Amino acid sequence: MVPAVELLARARLLVAPELSAGLVRELERISGRVAEPLGGEPLGGQPLLCVGAALPGALRAAADRLLWFHSVNAGTDPLLAAGPWPAGALLTRTVGRMGERIAQYVLAWVLAECQAVPEFAAQHARAEWRRLPTELVAGRTALVYGTGRIGGAVAGLLRGCGVRTVGVARTARTGPPPPGSDRVIGADEDAGELAGARWVVAALPLTEATEGFFGADRFAAVRGATFVNVGRGATVDMGALEAALRGGGVRRAVLDVLAEEPAAPGDPVWRLPRTVITSHSAGITADEDVAADFAACWEAVAAGRRPELAVDTGRGY
Amino acid sequence: MVPAVELLARARLLVAPELSAGLVRELERISGRVAEPLGGEPLGGQPLLCVGAALPGALRAAADRLLWFHSVNAGTDPLLAAGPWPAGALLTRTVGRMGERIAQYVLAWVLAECQAVPEFAAQHARAEWRRLPTELVAGRTALVYGTGRIGGAVAGLLRGCGVRTVGVARTARTGPPPPGSDRVIGADEDAGELAGARWVVAALPLTEATEGFFGADRFAAVRGATFVNVGRGATVDMGALEAALRGGGVRRAVLDVLAEEPAAPGDPVWRLPRTVITSHSAGITADEDVAADFAACWEAVAAGRRPELAVDTGRGY
Repeated sequence: MVPAVELLARARLLVAPELSAGLVRELERISGRVAEPLGGEPLGGQPLLCVGAALPGALRAAADRLLWFHSVNAGTDPLLAAGPWPAGALLTRTVGRMGERIAQYVLAWVLAECQAVPEFAAQHARAEWRRLPTELVAGRTALVYGTGRIGGAVAGLLRGCGVRTVGVARTARTGPPPPGSDRVIGADEDAGELAGARWVVAALPLTEATEGFFGADRFAAVRGATFVNVGRGATVDMGALEAALRGGGVRRAVLDVLAEEPAAPGDPVWRLPRTVITSHSAGITADEDVAADFAACWEAVAAGRRPELAVDTGRGY
Repeated sequence: MVPAVELLARARLLVAPELSAGLVRELERISGRVAEPLGGEPLGGQPLLCVGAALPGALRAAADRLLWFHSVNAGTDPLLAAGPWPAGALLTRTVGRMGERIAQYVLAWVLAECQAVPEFAAQHARAEWRRLPTELVAGRTALVYGTGRIGGAVAGLLRGCGVRTVGVARTARTGPPPPGSDRVIGADEDAGELAGARWVVAALPLTEATEGFFGADRFAAVRGATFVNVGRGATVDMGALEAALRGGGVRRAVLDVLAEEPAAPGDPVWRLPRTVITSHSAGITADEDVAADFAACWEAVAAGRRPELAVDTGRGY
């Protein structure tokens, strides 16, 4: 729910201690008040507005006074999983240029595979001049799970390179496909497209409904696609992925996210065949992204409107 | 010049011995005659049509009967440098999907740098989970030398990712910039754009006018751009490039072409700082490319028209 404008006017601004000084100054400028460090002094009786990554226990205890929490991250599943969300508190999130960033990550790894970038880099290190096969992306199919901002940005960038893009929506959609996708299908009708895909890109949020979404059944339908996960690690059944990699159904995997992060050096995930793991870096949020999205939310809330970046705390995204 | 249709009708088809059997069958089908291996029997008195990479001595000796030579490569500088081109012989070349291939090569390496692909691959090999800085391409400038099919394709693909693209033409152009470029400038007015560029992409043919084109003066104007060469190695003064890499003016280099190819394992070029050398692989010509471009040339010549893929043997491309 949207906090009442008169409550927001008297709310204190609490910011997580890990935020940079520059970002805090921006948040103070936008909200027109002085920021106080979250987790410091007793919270008193005033309404509270908080910006950070996690909801500390002290805030949960003062849940009745929490008007609004702005998450510096796009994925709010850790926030929501840590306990019931305080009734009546607005939760907004930072998306920033995350769609653009993640789309460039996906295209970079798609092209890196097709152009043998890691292999050429390794050859260079050995002072070896040898032709390696390369592959054009045009006309091949990418199946992109998730048709929101991030999935849409991924599909749009791939499509600009001539890739046929099929969006997969968890819930049925009507009307024309969103820009970026040549076609949108439901998750229950993906078997045929999985078989023909050259890339399967996972850009799903983690909810109860998406946990283990990429399991043995889906991977069994894949015929040589590379699997790229830029959503959430726990949407993938890692045992099923490993079996599909070993069986050859999945050609390669590029995983920016894991159910347990960071992966320890001894984690068997590092030994998956033909896999590259990156460090949840595809959609890094910059300070300017947090400030811009907080400002947009502020403008809406101050006008009594629900911000576009508000999270449906029941649905989970 | 375009061979007379009646001469073409009686011409023998000679094909270089390195062409694959499948390609030769395609050439026979297109031309409606049986292919003979180039360099075998005496050439006799008939007019000749030849498909290959190099002009053997026997053909030079029979230059008055050579109607048409179709090059299986896009770059015809080795052909033209090997001796004066037989007067009256048409020279055509294979461009194929080379523009598209080279554009994907360039974008792959541009994004690989921005997304730290080689660095993440190396971290993975060490089972190391660490965030690495990444960079968005949008709004940055790429200067693309060469505004023909290849330069145009490179600029167009980069522009589709939000990169501002500036084409550099060796000869002055009038009219609006070609599709793919936000702006086209002449080679004598590039200093300002070089200073602001994030990428400098060389896609120039090798001619007398372009040998050593990227020399100390040009590199001195570069302020932190990555240099990518997908044209010809000899268009670059390697000593000047090395100095600019060591001095920091050039951030990184990606070289698909060298003046001397292949580079031997002991070649000092492998030790250039922050450089990756690939094996002249960006614009590989596939058999289907040769067949398609030969067919297009055949159609034009058989109709008495000059093919679009005809080379100006004086200009060199």
